[in-house]
Amino acid sequence: MTELRVRYAETDRMGYVYYGNYATYFEVARVEALRKLGVTYKSLEDQGILLPVREFSIQYKRPGHYDDTLRIETTIQLPSTTTILFDYKTWRNDELINTASTSLVFVNAENGRPMRCPEHIWSLLQDSLFTDQ
Amino acid sequence: MTELRVRYAETDRMGYVYYGNYATYFEVARVEALRKLGVTYKSLEDQGILLPVREFSIQYKRPGHYDDTLRIETTIQLPSTTTILFDYKTWRNDELINTASTSLVFVNAENGRPMRCPEHIWSLLQDSLFTDQ
Amino acid sequence: MTELRVRYAETDRMGYVYYGNYATYFEVARVEALRKLGVTYKSLEDQGILLPVREFSIQYKRPGHYDDTLRIETTIQLPSTTTILFDYKTWRNDELINTASTSLVFVNAENGRPMRCPEHIWSLLQDSLFTDQ
Amino acid sequence: MTELRVRYAETDRMGYVYYGNYATYFEVARVEALRKLGVTYKSLEDQGILLPVREFSIQYKRPGHYDDTLRIETTIQLPSTTTILFDYKTWRNDELINTASTSLVFVNAENGRPMRCPEHIWSLLQDSLFTDQ
Repeated sequence: MTELRVRYAETDRMGYVYYGNYATYFEVARVEALRKLGVTYKSLEDQGILLPVREFSIQYKRPGHYDDTLRIETTIQLPSTTTILFDYKTWRNDELINTASTSLVFVNAENGRPMRCPEHIWSLLQDSLFTDQ
Repeated sequence: MTELRVRYAETDRMGYVYYGNYATYFEVARVEALRKLGVTYKSLEDQGILLPVREFSIQYKRPGHYDDTLRIETTIQLPSTTTILFDYKTWRNDELINTASTSLVFVNAENGRPMRCPEHIWSLLQDSLFTDQ
Repeated sequence: MTELRVRYAETDRMGYVYYGNYATYFEVARVEALRKLGVTYKSLEDQGILLPVREFSIQYKRPGHYDDTLRIETTIQLPSTTTILFDYKTWRNDELINTASTSLVFVNAENGRPMRCPEHIWSLLQDSLFTDQ
Repeated sequence: MTELRVRYAETDRMGYVYYGNYATYFEVARVEALRKLGVTYKSLEDQGILLPVREFSIQYKRPGHYDDTLRIETTIQLPSTTTILFDYKTWRNDELINTASTSLVFVNAENGRPMRCPEHIWSLLQDSLFTDQ
């Protein structure tokens, strides 16, 4: 579970969180979910492993507002050896703000090609296929 | 067809357009597509009609880079009297960068409720159900 | 003192925090500094008081990087009854990343005119002219 | 002179262009000013020359609004062999929105050290010390 407070910069003239800014919130949520499992995304990149997003979808239920504290619940799945899936639910108190998911692919930074999820990450993730609540 | 040049601010440390920034590009693309039909999004809001996004999905094929000129092709559909659908294809020359779609709902700014698409917009859109090429 | 972790979205292809993103960090820092004094910026706006920025300047010493934890030290001054001044120092451990300042003006939301700082805020601020360390 | 149309994503809940977003507009303005002189910023980076910003200051006169067309007038100066200075004026029709300036330093990407402005750029800039009007 990741908590974020909505910044003024992230609102738009409708007074809501701009619809594109949730992508950034989900980036924070998945990086923190991995960190709790012992995987630092930055150290992955330092080892030459990139994790670009291949698909992103979001269903907006209610708007987020300035200064709201939003909680993002993240679930991880490993549908294949090269792909990692994150599902998100964004809450304000007990109101569901939106649901979303992203699919990311392990990519070798040297040649830009998809690669297998490294063993130690695979086993960390397998051990804890999990909801980050 | 909307053309955009990728700004430095929109890249990330992978050297690519940050995955969340395409939402902004699609906002520009749909506003320009409506403008060509004679509908200014700003004047809609001035008349008390909001168009919040209800769903957004995107499939990333290739990364965009700094200073790239991207072309976004926008297609409009009216699946119901309250909903407007935009499909997008982002191109760099003849390379497909991504495909995406957003579903927006006409909302009455006074009470926050969904409303029918105003008559004059409905007929403008019906006349030209269209690909903005 | 406000702590922020650098998001991937906030980096650029140089691998640094994009120079314009510090403005957002300083917004967070001054809102948190006011909150500690008992002033919620959101409630100011709900009372019809806006605080637009009139001047902003920043001197960059070192780049911020992805996943860095940055600490922002904020100092408040009241040079006049209508103006509030924030000075910032951004640190990564004991390295000074940048220094900056913003000047904001109390504005009446109804007529868009500058106004005196409300009494209760003036006294709260006077009581604690302070460094938020 | 660079023209930009304000995006919805760039507004905030005050209905104005968020104060930090002008940094991005000035990035676009200086890149376009250099491009007109025959210098592509991207190709500079490809040659191992970075141009990080060392100082940025801005004086806000009037707010920018959604869908405004803003014109940015850019002036270049070379106060030393390692530094390049850009001054900006942002206009909406004949209203001055803000004035600003940035100081950038030529940096060798390999060692991160300041370097002299490359000869061919120096002479291009000397030939045309100029206002981009």
